[in-house]
Amino acid sequence: MQIGNRSGRLVLIEGDRALDVERASDGAFGPDPQDAYERWEAFRQWAEGQDASAGEPFDVAELGAPVPRPRQIMAIGLNYADHAAESGFDLPENPVVFAKFASSLTGARADVAVTGDQVDWEVELVAVIGTGGRNIPEAQAWDHVAGLTVGQDISDREVQFWGNPPQFSLGKSQEGFAPVGPAVVTLDEVDAAADRSDLALSCTVTHPDGTSEELQSGRTSSLIFTVPDLIARLSKIVELYPGDLIFTGTPDGVGIGRDPQVFLQAGDVLRTQIEGLGEIEQTFVGR
Amino acid sequence: MQIGNRSGRLVLIEGDRALDVERASDGAFGPDPQDAYERWEAFRQWAEGQDASAGEPFDVAELGAPVPRPRQIMAIGLNYADHAAESGFDLPENPVVFAKFASSLTGARADVAVTGDQVDWEVELVAVIGTGGRNIPEAQAWDHVAGLTVGQDISDREVQFWGNPPQFSLGKSQEGFAPVGPAVVTLDEVDAAADRSDLALSCTVTHPDGTSEELQSGRTSSLIFTVPDLIARLSKIVELYPGDLIFTGTPDGVGIGRDPQVFLQAGDVLRTQIEGLGEIEQTFVGR
Repeated sequence: MQIGNRSGRLVLIEGDRALDVERASDGAFGPDPQDAYERWEAFRQWAEGQDASAGEPFDVAELGAPVPRPRQIMAIGLNYADHAAESGFDLPENPVVFAKFASSLTGARADVAVTGDQVDWEVELVAVIGTGGRNIPEAQAWDHVAGLTVGQDISDREVQFWGNPPQFSLGKSQEGFAPVGPAVVTLDEVDAAADRSDLALSCTVTHPDGTSEELQSGRTSSLIFTVPDLIARLSKIVELYPGDLIFTGTPDGVGIGRDPQVFLQAGDVLRTQIEGLGEIEQTFVGR
Repeated sequence: MQIGNRSGRLVLIEGDRALDVERASDGAFGPDPQDAYERWEAFRQWAEGQDASAGEPFDVAELGAPVPRPRQIMAIGLNYADHAAESGFDLPENPVVFAKFASSLTGARADVAVTGDQVDWEVELVAVIGTGGRNIPEAQAWDHVAGLTVGQDISDREVQFWGNPPQFSLGKSQEGFAPVGPAVVTLDEVDAAADRSDLALSCTVTHPDGTSEELQSGRTSSLIFTVPDLIARLSKIVELYPGDLIFTGTPDGVGIGRDPQVFLQAGDVLRTQIEGLGEIEQTFVGR
């Protein structure tokens, strides 16, 4: 099952069809995409009986962030060993946790302004919380996940590192710097296509001259702190709420870690894919 | 005018009386405290015509966080020169911005668990956004502020500094670590009592043996980045939303900056005051 946000309305997606949830449920569920997570178990049970392929055709450009109004967005830094090394940091003993502020969220297709000379890419698996809680045991953590989606943790490195000690959140929260989507894929559907603990993830840039380059390619089996481990550790400190997003960190291959360093330019198109979850695409534009 | 949250319901407060907004407005405004900020100009105009002293008596313990569900909570580190020095950091050239995750919010009276051996205090002026926006000029920034309130940026220093680079957010987001209140005081009421740019702020601990000690005492005129300057700088990067909270940083006197270091213990009562805004009080308890 795939749960999306078509022009601000909660939908179920199958292929190129989207089923409007409010209409299909005769109003039992509202149009707000957030409602799916606020009443996750009831929603999941209802949605499992639906046939989204009976919905309307839609264009992927209509898809907003599938969870447009999370109460908390937690993001993990340095969660792949090769990326920690290219960033010049030791392997973390505890998760490095920052926030992406909610106004940076956008959907599967968006123009994103290049805010400076050091705008960088980071493909990330994003976990979406269904049932929230505190002190969630690692062994039960997957039960609290509504589904998974594709994210980019776009970063303005100048802002990210402008303070001492550097606090990453502001440099990763410019407009459009948290694209997620195209939809939230529930775990049963992920499992049918792949191993949820070993998903291939990658991103590719296409430049205005038509040349393309694969920027990152990794597997989530290389995560230092896995999704259930993160949920267990985070929920010891923070109450997780329905619809909360966890950006789980990026593998190696970011621009700031290269020699010479490379950053996104106006005209670049960034395509980001995760096995079983689909693809998002951002076009970078001048300020 | 003071805007509060009495047991989850939006109220106007005057002295020991609280006027229920939904009832007094015949449903024009709902019971959700967030509604005041989502429709800030309409709410402000309606509320100015009300007499909150005609409301019901209430107990301050009934007051929850006056903005219980903000979309973004931004907090500023090292924003007073003496505090930056005691923390061992240079004066910041740009604001040091982290998040307090929303599940750490609580109201004017709360028991807070001592989560470790290094739980510390930080009195802070908190600005509440009324009308949101991007790229707000500093000269117009106060027009975007609904009001001011008292906050504590309680910090578990072990968690705050457990990573490299340290990301402050998680160590400042334990349950109850973001008490705010007792109410949001609008700027006209602040101005009638004091100079909004030069408010005295302080906090005091009372130990179980009855002894008390003033821990911090400062003035907001010592802020490195003032409230309007912060709003201008933050809104260049992040869209500010109605009800967003900005914790503006703490003056010197925190426990980690002392020799020897001192931290909060179970049984301690922490009272935090800001001129013109009132007082909040937290009781620390064992885990």
